[in-house]
Amino acid sequence: MVNSGVEFGSVDWVLNHLTEDKHSSVLKAALMELPAADVANLLESMPPEQRHDLWELIPPEHEGEILTWLHDEARASIINDMDEKELVAAADSMEVSDLAFVLEELPRDQTDLILESLDMDRRLRLEKVLSYEDGTVGRLMTTDVMAVRPDVTVAVVLRWLRRHETLPPHTDALMVTSSEGGFMGKVAMNTLLLSSPERMISEVMSGDTEVVMAQASEQEVTALFNRRDLISVAVVDEQHHLIGRITLDDIVDAIRSDAEEKVMKSAGLDQEEDLFSPVIPSAKRRGVWLGINLITVFAAAWVIGQFEEALGQIVALAVLMPVVASMGGIAGSQTLTLAIRGLALNQIASSNTRWLLMKELAVGVLNGTVWAAVVAVVAWFWFNDIGLSAVIAAALIFNLLAAAVSGILVPLTLKKLGIDPALSGAVILTTVTDIIGFLSFLGLATLFLL
Amino acid sequence: MVNSGVEFGSVDWVLNHLTEDKHSSVLKAALMELPAADVANLLESMPPEQRHDLWELIPPEHEGEILTWLHDEARASIINDMDEKELVAAADSMEVSDLAFVLEELPRDQTDLILESLDMDRRLRLEKVLSYEDGTVGRLMTTDVMAVRPDVTVAVVLRWLRRHETLPPHTDALMVTSSEGGFMGKVAMNTLLLSSPERMISEVMSGDTEVVMAQASEQEVTALFNRRDLISVAVVDEQHHLIGRITLDDIVDAIRSDAEEKVMKSAGLDQEEDLFSPVIPSAKRRGVWLGINLITVFAAAWVIGQFEEALGQIVALAVLMPVVASMGGIAGSQTLTLAIRGLALNQIASSNTRWLLMKELAVGVLNGTVWAAVVAVVAWFWFNDIGLSAVIAAALIFNLLAAAVSGILVPLTLKKLGIDPALSGAVILTTVTDIIGFLSFLGLATLFLL
Repeated sequence: MVNSGVEFGSVDWVLNHLTEDKHSSVLKAALMELPAADVANLLESMPPEQRHDLWELIPPEHEGEILTWLHDEARASIINDMDEKELVAAADSMEVSDLAFVLEELPRDQTDLILESLDMDRRLRLEKVLSYEDGTVGRLMTTDVMAVRPDVTVAVVLRWLRRHETLPPHTDALMVTSSEGGFMGKVAMNTLLLSSPERMISEVMSGDTEVVMAQASEQEVTALFNRRDLISVAVVDEQHHLIGRITLDDIVDAIRSDAEEKVMKSAGLDQEEDLFSPVIPSAKRRGVWLGINLITVFAAAWVIGQFEEALGQIVALAVLMPVVASMGGIAGSQTLTLAIRGLALNQIASSNTRWLLMKELAVGVLNGTVWAAVVAVVAWFWFNDIGLSAVIAAALIFNLLAAAVSGILVPLTLKKLGIDPALSGAVILTTVTDIIGFLSFLGLATLFLL
Repeated sequence: MVNSGVEFGSVDWVLNHLTEDKHSSVLKAALMELPAADVANLLESMPPEQRHDLWELIPPEHEGEILTWLHDEARASIINDMDEKELVAAADSMEVSDLAFVLEELPRDQTDLILESLDMDRRLRLEKVLSYEDGTVGRLMTTDVMAVRPDVTVAVVLRWLRRHETLPPHTDALMVTSSEGGFMGKVAMNTLLLSSPERMISEVMSGDTEVVMAQASEQEVTALFNRRDLISVAVVDEQHHLIGRITLDDIVDAIRSDAEEKVMKSAGLDQEEDLFSPVIPSAKRRGVWLGINLITVFAAAWVIGQFEEALGQIVALAVLMPVVASMGGIAGSQTLTLAIRGLALNQIASSNTRWLLMKELAVGVLNGTVWAAVVAVVAWFWFNDIGLSAVIAAALIFNLLAAAVSGILVPLTLKKLGIDPALSGAVILTTVTDIIGFLSFLGLATLFLL
């Protein structure tokens, strides 16, 4: 009766079932079937109360994996609801690198609780992972890696492998290490399959394979995977000892999260922001960005305030001034977006900046002239004042040139200062184009029209 | 002498060498060493003339792979410079799916030329790939896939594998097909390694494995890889016949390109836009977006024009009006960005929209009240007019509420209309917040201050 026409497992389907019966056995059965990533996404799609009810229906043995799929804020909202026993059980079922990721966001007492509950081996591995900084390879890697010695035959390795029921996920190669644990190379599983059994591992392994240092940044290893088309790569410490591996699926998560971060940042949001978070913390976080914007817009208003005389005499100036500012903002953000991508791809360097600037200025002149003509004609029909049309046309061209220059120079300068242009580039740029737009339009009007 | 302190292989290093000697043998040697992805990125970092010179130094046998790494527009600029023989040779060294991707952007006569030059087998495979629409799995898949029958033993398969020198890249499993080519399941390479040789493939294969239809969209298969942590998946046609496979590295490219597209789109740019493209085509493409913006900003100007009387009497209105409009735009774009992410992740459904809207309204009330108070105080110090302070505070709160509502409803409506909210959401939203900002501030001023 309920849910006719609503897709199985969709947000509506779940919310309808929850509303009807919050202990729904149908729902419980569905949660066993759905992959952890989908359940996590469903939890993130619930308002707080329903999120709590849904969590209660999830079998304890699945909780760990589902927690790893959640965004930080949503995860925190759920962990808050869990008692100690539940939390320890969930931690117990998580991979070490996932657990490190989750622990970092928890308050100290919960972290200690979980650390104490772990067996010695897991605890040592976890502490190793936690000793690396967030955003490094050491945090991203899995420590679950199979290694063999170089001085055994393929047949021996194959026999050893057959004693395992399964291998760690995404094992495309075995690492080759010395007896001291030094990394020597790797041998692809497919090479093992193709090689004659009597050959030595040292003969079939590839020694000049890529490795990454545990201290390397996520960005470096992502670039490496991208350029070399890898599935997995060995992670070594300062002594060149094998300590783990990174697989392509970790990289996919990193790329996805990086892309999300860029989009969210540009609106002054945290990428971990929960769509259904409570009102007060949401308002607080977003309020900061509004405050920054308020400062910049008051700066623009102050510029306008310098031309009270002109505005008092010619009301048309107030009507048309947003046109000049807004066109500059749009043109500038196009150049800015291109420049930010170019910087991210390392395509902009000191030897080609001049050429780029010239090109953007030329684009500004062309588009400036075309749209200035259109704006001048519209303004003339509207206010019937040829002087006003000339002034707005000149101001528009001038602002588009300023937009081109700042679209290139703002991100370059921010990068040199070590500030991410994706975060604050747009705010600074539109402040520049607003101020120059108002200044040039109202300034020219004061000079020529009063 | 040249290039002291400039990193080997960087844009500056290459440009310096090119300027000194455009037939530089040092550069030629470096280009043999660098991975294709890096060479492609270097080409994209060159102004047209230097790009041409650099391309001339690239050995013909590498050209095909480098072409596949370029963005469309940069690739077109290079292919334009190639003669027929060069183009055919490059096409010859490309994978079928990459070739399909490149061909689609070429003019008809070049496409025909390349098609005619291919041997029958490659041509048939290419035509198969081209028969699927752009953005579908059929276009993304590789047709280079190994399949075995279910009624042979593991030992037979292992013997057959050992007759190969290498396997296709990223082969983590063999597909299992019936004698008619029907897909039956797959057997992981690691399973082959762990199984006893006398077992049948039908016993060790996994039959309930994921498959995708060649007609499925890139988005669907990307979501599948993400949710199930896959390395490769079989692609079947309508008759459930195996026709290829998709590997995780194709998905990584799709995710990366999708993320880039979102960022570029939001500035009205094409994701394939070349940083160093010629001025005229650049200006043309970007001019369209400026034109759309001009229409929206004239709409806002028209609204302002309705209040000439108020503006003529109180100049402070012209000074302060951008504050109300801008704060609405910022608050609205925060809600919009969250809503677009929520829609992309399928987290927003009819059953939770109301809750979301209420939450965003509450955030709007809170932040509206706080910042309205700040703005009112600043305005009072500036213009010493308590009525003006009250009017701007009320207008600001009102506009933040309008921003919350449109931040949710604009993307929902666009999605229902089949329009991508990431492209036009921001333009529509800021038009709404500009108009409501000016209307409420100038309207309230007309009612209470004149």
